[in-house]
Amino acid sequence: MKFLHTSDWHIGRQFHGVSLLEDQRAVLSQLIDYISENPVDALVIAGDIYDRSVPPTAAIELMNQFVGRVCDELSLPIILIPGNHDGAERLGFGSSQMKGSGLHILSSFDDMTQPVVITSDIGEVAFYGMPYNDPEMVRHYFKQPVSTFDDAHKFLADEIKSQFSPKQKNVLISHCFVDGAIESESERPLCIGGSERVSHEHFVDFDYVALGHLHQPQKKGQDYIRYSGSLMKYSFSEQHQKKGVTLVELDKNGFKSATHIDLKAPHQMRIIEGELINIIEQAKEDSNHEDYLLVRLMDTHAILNPMEKLRSVYPNVLHIEKPGMLIGVEKELAAAKLSRSEMDMFRDFFKETQNVDLSHEQDEAISDLIMQLSHQ
Amino acid sequence: MKFLHTSDWHIGRQFHGVSLLEDQRAVLSQLIDYISENPVDALVIAGDIYDRSVPPTAAIELMNQFVGRVCDELSLPIILIPGNHDGAERLGFGSSQMKGSGLHILSSFDDMTQPVVITSDIGEVAFYGMPYNDPEMVRHYFKQPVSTFDDAHKFLADEIKSQFSPKQKNVLISHCFVDGAIESESERPLCIGGSERVSHEHFVDFDYVALGHLHQPQKKGQDYIRYSGSLMKYSFSEQHQKKGVTLVELDKNGFKSATHIDLKAPHQMRIIEGELINIIEQAKEDSNHEDYLLVRLMDTHAILNPMEKLRSVYPNVLHIEKPGMLIGVEKELAAAKLSRSEMDMFRDFFKETQNVDLSHEQDEAISDLIMQLSHQ
Repeated sequence: MKFLHTSDWHIGRQFHGVSLLEDQRAVLSQLIDYISENPVDALVIAGDIYDRSVPPTAAIELMNQFVGRVCDELSLPIILIPGNHDGAERLGFGSSQMKGSGLHILSSFDDMTQPVVITSDIGEVAFYGMPYNDPEMVRHYFKQPVSTFDDAHKFLADEIKSQFSPKQKNVLISHCFVDGAIESESERPLCIGGSERVSHEHFVDFDYVALGHLHQPQKKGQDYIRYSGSLMKYSFSEQHQKKGVTLVELDKNGFKSATHIDLKAPHQMRIIEGELINIIEQAKEDSNHEDYLLVRLMDTHAILNPMEKLRSVYPNVLHIEKPGMLIGVEKELAAAKLSRSEMDMFRDFFKETQNVDLSHEQDEAISDLIMQLSHQ
Repeated sequence: MKFLHTSDWHIGRQFHGVSLLEDQRAVLSQLIDYISENPVDALVIAGDIYDRSVPPTAAIELMNQFVGRVCDELSLPIILIPGNHDGAERLGFGSSQMKGSGLHILSSFDDMTQPVVITSDIGEVAFYGMPYNDPEMVRHYFKQPVSTFDDAHKFLADEIKSQFSPKQKNVLISHCFVDGAIESESERPLCIGGSERVSHEHFVDFDYVALGHLHQPQKKGQDYIRYSGSLMKYSFSEQHQKKGVTLVELDKNGFKSATHIDLKAPHQMRIIEGELINIIEQAKEDSNHEDYLLVRLMDTHAILNPMEKLRSVYPNVLHIEKPGMLIGVEKELAAAKLSRSEMDMFRDFFKETQNVDLSHEQDEAISDLIMQLSHQ
């Protein structure tokens, strides 16, 4: 029994003012090609289909075309949940009317305990979708005194586990931040201050856990508790991450294997570092000169119109950084400024606003507080 | 063969800052009750399901509940088209996946020539949905040189007629302004200046034409070319209009009858006219004191806090007019001002900006132009 696990499509996302829709269309087209050539039993999307709760019309059209190709033409069931970027009610319209066609949008807590059951060569596999949620939603809906994401996800996982049938394998689909997993720059925090973390321990009883939210493909705690990562790169810091989907195989004993299937956006996101003249020279040899680029200019002298010069060879330079332009005294000053600690900055701020220095006690109290916060 | 024809639900509409959602919920609930007790073969909604292309979440939820009750529980097919208030692509997401469930959203020109065929006691009836369109859309999609709404609708009706099968009766669903039909205040013009009008002649070959856009129930040209009118009143000027849905009956010869089925919103929209003291006195006898009211105060003296006083007996007074407050000279002046013709106003405007009077020729030319425009 094989299925594909993907997440974090963010259809309709903009990057430095550039629409990524055509790249997304190309990657989804690769995914369709893969499915046509490598039959699987289901496609699971673990949230953040769209980038916003009210996606642009063109994003909806692209998703609609994808669903038409996969569900109608290839007859492959799609099982998806909303993520923190999606609007659950909006995404869920008509979900009850779509089920028969193989498009399963599990967008509410009501849907959570009614798994999509796929019958395969290893028997029945139940796919449980836990729509993206925060503690407040669980408190309100289930009248449960949960106060953290961890409490909420433990409670919901227990609810689902109470539905387990001995004759079925069980797959969980969830959009959350599993504690200890690695963040990327392009994710939007679920809440402030780290309390969004959920222990993977709540999920160990499933045969596979298809996670969404984090954009880097990774496993956490167990081989079968995994993030597929995002469909494509959504920040320059992801330049070295592999992007694609995860092919999951289950057998009679449960989890068998997870394999990364590469998908490649026409425009990659890359950082190029060097002096302007060298970058322009090397562009001649660069067959991917249409990639989306962050150029870090190391020149130490002023340059007139660097963007114009760079775009003559790399048309999609989206951002320039000039760390080399801080020279001599200025550079030292800036370096000194950048290396100032939070405590130094707070002392300055206090003096500026209160006209006196922090007392010894105040200084200690703030130091402790900063220490605590930075270790959370 | 019986079906219900309705249109212009405008779910999520606000009226003088008040949400009409609970009234809409109540009216839709009456409609569900009617359907449970009076089986029909289909429910047709001729556009303007929502009030905006991006409807509020609560509106989507209400529509979703309605669809669940009607399609899933009562197994009644719903056939709908987008109106000028709806976002066709947004409304159409998943439409291909919903068809099997009996929810037919005909939101594109592609859908237009693929009718929903309902088999009934009189044989097959084909329901053709013409999604709301303007000439530009038809020009672009069909590469046709249409320049008016009339051209566009003639072309589209001909496209549909070319699909007619001799063994089927044919119903058209369209959202447009049929020339000569009566407007209400709560409609949004499709374009400026009257060129939105479409001749009913293009539609005479259908067995029934289920129209949406105009909010007053009416027929035009033929008994079987009809507006069902809006679900409920959406302006005070509609206070005397009947609201509800149209029950259509077809037989072996085609159109048999159309009957208005009353639906009644909990809060009616009414205009009350009189002096404050009398209005407050009569409120005691008024069992519908929670209606949405426009109060036209005829008092000729100043009144302190009239809204507060009125709302103590009629909590949902939404607007007050005080025609009686223009007294003596002021009133005469105002009356004189209001009765000025377009021509008088243009003469003043010309004098004001050009510092000379219109010449005799100019005056005649403008008069003719105004005459022409006002007779279009």
